[in-house]
Amino acid sequence: MGNFKKYLIGQPLKSSQLHHEKFSVFRGLPILSSDAISSVAYACEEILWVLIPIMGIISYNYLLYVTLSIIALLSILIFSYRQTIDSYPKGGGSYIVSRENLGEIPSLVAGASLTIDYILTVAVSATAGVAAITSAFPFLLPHKIPLTLVIIGIMTLGNLRGISDSAKIFSVPTYFFLIMTIIMILTGIIKYLFFGYTAIPVEGVSETFGDMTVFLFLKAFSAGCTALTGVEAVSDGVANFKEPATKNAKKVLAFLFLIVILIFGGVSYLSTIYHAVPSLEKTVISQIAEQVFGQGSFLFFLMQFATTCILIMAANTAFSDFPLLLSFIARDGYAPRQFNKRGHRLSFSNGILMLAIAAAILVIVFQGENHFLLPLYAVGVFISFTLSQSGMVMKWYRGKEKGWKHKALINGFGALITFCTAIIISINKFTHGAWLVFVLLPLAILLMKRIKKHYNKVASQLSLENNYFPIFNSKVARRFILPIAGLNEAVIKSINYAKCLSDDITAFHVSTNEEETQKLKEKWKKYNIQIPLVIKESEYREVVQPLVDFIESDEFRTTKYDIVTVVLPQFSTEKWWGTILHNQTAVFIRSTLLKKKNIAVITVPFIIHDQYNVSEISVQNKESYPKTDTAS
Amino acid sequence: MGNFKKYLIGQPLKSSQLHHEKFSVFRGLPILSSDAISSVAYACEEILWVLIPIMGIISYNYLLYVTLSIIALLSILIFSYRQTIDSYPKGGGSYIVSRENLGEIPSLVAGASLTIDYILTVAVSATAGVAAITSAFPFLLPHKIPLTLVIIGIMTLGNLRGISDSAKIFSVPTYFFLIMTIIMILTGIIKYLFFGYTAIPVEGVSETFGDMTVFLFLKAFSAGCTALTGVEAVSDGVANFKEPATKNAKKVLAFLFLIVILIFGGVSYLSTIYHAVPSLEKTVISQIAEQVFGQGSFLFFLMQFATTCILIMAANTAFSDFPLLLSFIARDGYAPRQFNKRGHRLSFSNGILMLAIAAAILVIVFQGENHFLLPLYAVGVFISFTLSQSGMVMKWYRGKEKGWKHKALINGFGALITFCTAIIISINKFTHGAWLVFVLLPLAILLMKRIKKHYNKVASQLSLENNYFPIFNSKVARRFILPIAGLNEAVIKSINYAKCLSDDITAFHVSTNEEETQKLKEKWKKYNIQIPLVIKESEYREVVQPLVDFIESDEFRTTKYDIVTVVLPQFSTEKWWGTILHNQTAVFIRSTLLKKKNIAVITVPFIIHDQYNVSEISVQNKESYPKTDTAS
Repeated sequence: MGNFKKYLIGQPLKSSQLHHEKFSVFRGLPILSSDAISSVAYACEEILWVLIPIMGIISYNYLLYVTLSIIALLSILIFSYRQTIDSYPKGGGSYIVSRENLGEIPSLVAGASLTIDYILTVAVSATAGVAAITSAFPFLLPHKIPLTLVIIGIMTLGNLRGISDSAKIFSVPTYFFLIMTIIMILTGIIKYLFFGYTAIPVEGVSETFGDMTVFLFLKAFSAGCTALTGVEAVSDGVANFKEPATKNAKKVLAFLFLIVILIFGGVSYLSTIYHAVPSLEKTVISQIAEQVFGQGSFLFFLMQFATTCILIMAANTAFSDFPLLLSFIARDGYAPRQFNKRGHRLSFSNGILMLAIAAAILVIVFQGENHFLLPLYAVGVFISFTLSQSGMVMKWYRGKEKGWKHKALINGFGALITFCTAIIISINKFTHGAWLVFVLLPLAILLMKRIKKHYNKVASQLSLENNYFPIFNSKVARRFILPIAGLNEAVIKSINYAKCLSDDITAFHVSTNEEETQKLKEKWKKYNIQIPLVIKESEYREVVQPLVDFIESDEFRTTKYDIVTVVLPQFSTEKWWGTILHNQTAVFIRSTLLKKKNIAVITVPFIIHDQYNVSEISVQNKESYPKTDTAS
Repeated sequence: MGNFKKYLIGQPLKSSQLHHEKFSVFRGLPILSSDAISSVAYACEEILWVLIPIMGIISYNYLLYVTLSIIALLSILIFSYRQTIDSYPKGGGSYIVSRENLGEIPSLVAGASLTIDYILTVAVSATAGVAAITSAFPFLLPHKIPLTLVIIGIMTLGNLRGISDSAKIFSVPTYFFLIMTIIMILTGIIKYLFFGYTAIPVEGVSETFGDMTVFLFLKAFSAGCTALTGVEAVSDGVANFKEPATKNAKKVLAFLFLIVILIFGGVSYLSTIYHAVPSLEKTVISQIAEQVFGQGSFLFFLMQFATTCILIMAANTAFSDFPLLLSFIARDGYAPRQFNKRGHRLSFSNGILMLAIAAAILVIVFQGENHFLLPLYAVGVFISFTLSQSGMVMKWYRGKEKGWKHKALINGFGALITFCTAIIISINKFTHGAWLVFVLLPLAILLMKRIKKHYNKVASQLSLENNYFPIFNSKVARRFILPIAGLNEAVIKSINYAKCLSDDITAFHVSTNEEETQKLKEKWKKYNIQIPLVIKESEYREVVQPLVDFIESDEFRTTKYDIVTVVLPQFSTEKWWGTILHNQTAVFIRSTLLKKKNIAVITVPFIIHDQYNVSEISVQNKESYPKTDTAS
């Protein structure tokens, strides 16, 4: 097993090998913004899903207005986050900003929202990546769920190996997608404006149209807000930039802004002129690419490939950010400690595995259909936006440094807008799945508080400040008891070992079968085992309870505050499956006894060799010990 | 958890409460023959599945011939099994007969075939039972898989409680089905003969017909052979009859014969005149019932209910027979010993659980569709028929008692015919799933031989005949080592306990974090812990390997043949989920160390209380020990 693990995730790495490569702007941009940029691959589609069924063909006119208002929201966010970058040069994720400025509960809300979001990022991006593949190769459509799971599996393995810190190749997919999208937008516009291309007639869309209402507009707006997911990544990752880090991070943020305007706006415009209709079979972006580049053309396939690549990249950012977040939460005591422990390859392996499993479950439950997953997504993102911005306001208010009012205003406006957006999204998407977020959030927070309480309790009970240092009575501790099922080599070994530590040893046998008990008694005599043998009957074929009863009885133990010692022979086989073939009574007895405060358990191993060589043992025996025929 | 288990499966029972009720003929017949009788519910259907697509409407003429040849085969089997009953008044299952007369491999083949068959009996009967329900209530059709699983779950619980020995109610469903079927047959014939009922025209069946070939006939024949599954049950259960047991068992066998002729023949005839067409939506028997009793009539629903009942009964026979078979195999050492251990309620709980899980997997994999499961079924049944008959021939040949030639002839003929049938079925059904049996059989046999080999090895290594009784050097065994992560109450408790047993204790710390190590050193001084502290660096954040290396180094241990002792403090929480929140390093260290031959492990428990009351502990402390401020 050990070798298989090594093969799968690689040789272990030394702690001293832990170092983070610092990004230049050129390298940092693609790595930190792939999530935000990739959202474009599905944001337009989500808006159209809302509009088309009600507005029909006229939807395309309104698409641009919705896009523009989302871009306006983005610009507010960008300004707000510039300030976060300045204040948190070591990385200011929502969890950390809330924790420092708003207190426990808000930080837990942020932590829980982010947790849910990272899981959704993986599920959504992997699903969308596969949707890009199946749009190009429709025959793969029936296999999209296994395909998605395979991609998640590969990312998991990759991240367990620790690719996140080393792969320079990671900037390629983002630039690749960027270039392909720009080519598509330009070609599309040129084809339309100068070559008079008219969109193929759309099927199944009514020519008549309903009224545009505020409600419908907000609905479309909240659907499109998925385009903004991933914007906070830059402010999380400031520490990863080369000096001057904050300056570089802000540059990246500015570029990100321009890129989103360019490609989100561009794709929206293309949707309008090429009349893409969202469907479960073909993504909107692939429909556009098909018309622009021509069906089955090389560039079309290249575009699909680029989309898949950037979406997988986006999923991958969750794989590198989520375990880190979880390790912060675990360090603060709100999540199991294991999440704050680096694995063989220095990655936080437990967090990676948890993320992968949760995402895989989502993919299976939602049948690999993004359209059903996305409503859950945006709510959490905007809750954490709001908290992070509010935290910044609080920071300015408390610090009251020069110009704080101006700064608080910017973040305050950001907080207000994102809060409103969060509410709009929640209302619009509530019945479509967002309710699940409002069920999961309180549960997650409750769980985290519960865990914290537990760790506090453990710490207080382990603390040496209690001044409780029990001294045990040595005579009682040396009262050994050895539960046995029969008399064999393993028992003899245990007895002889126990004799080294104590001269007060009792063997204890629970009789469930009279014949066997009789045999044991005879053997006991024959081999002249010179320790007392206590036999108790058990009517219910129960072995452990009679043992505990006996230990706790006055017959055996005289004081309940002193430790007594149980000696257990335990089989161990060289092959892993060997353990299945034994009753494992020893394991069961031990786990029961260890729940008793004052019973210590000594386990004496007896190895069953796969290749048994009597002569070798005899030699060894002769060399070291006089051969004896009884244990006396 | 303990209380929940009690609620679910009942109070534990005493070993002395184990007793088998003895059957009269009237009680034994329904219990032992429900499997065979219930086969009728699907055997006709299986024959028609073969014939209809090729022969069209003319199939009904040939159905009767196929039915007659299967009844002829049954009569041969009945004669053969009468002799088995005479020879094995304690129960002569295929496994036991083969083991006694044919040797190891044939008995393992029989054991493996029976294992596969019992699993299939549960899967097939539960599925067919649900098919009877969905035929009456088509709206349940989409939920048939969960429905089947629920039924298997209920049977599992029932059998874990041990219903098999107590429920007198068990004879009811068989007689109920019998009576309902006879009513249906009679009504059907009367309606047709005297009231001139003509069958409703069948849809989707061609009027034209292909030729009847030998091959097609044999194919239909092998499909119908599923009707004979369960015949061996009577000879397995001779011991359960009242005296004169063999005579009563033979009576039951005779009745069984008559019943199968009556209802299998009758249903076949009805299929012919009422033109039932097999389909995945409605069983053949329900189509007949619908025409005979009228659609939606009370008697129709009653018939469906009776069918469901007897099929569940049939599945239940597997639940009582399979764990018994498995316990025989386990007793002989070919299966894990756990299968030969009675649970709280005296049932062989492990066997019951294994059966349920395996059957549930089959139901899920085969999508709750009997038509796909049945090809696997008949092969195994006929293999075990053949082996059991051949075993009998061998028995007569070896014994050479008076009239042995005559008896050997009967069993020999039975063996020959069942062997031929097994081959016919295998060839016909090979591509339909029977190949799976030929993959599983060798694997199962290999596994059983492997297990036997392992137990033999264990027995020889545990045997006291080896005369290897190691005596350990008491000074080395008392060399204690205590791996610690930090200094806390649990560690102090372990040290103080260890001091009772030894005065050679070393504390061992693996440093993965310099800061923590420094803290530990300071605490060690502050609390004046008077045992040496060894600190090793670990670059790979590995804790166990450095410990093992240190123990095995010359620095610590002087002789490799002597046992050294490792002391491990182990946390234990009152709530079960508490264990998830700790790294469980102690468990991991112990399991690694116990693979080393000469390292004993002492575990010292430290209970984390859910409600922590310092004052209580202080009182307890004052009562028993002088309060100390250091561990000295």
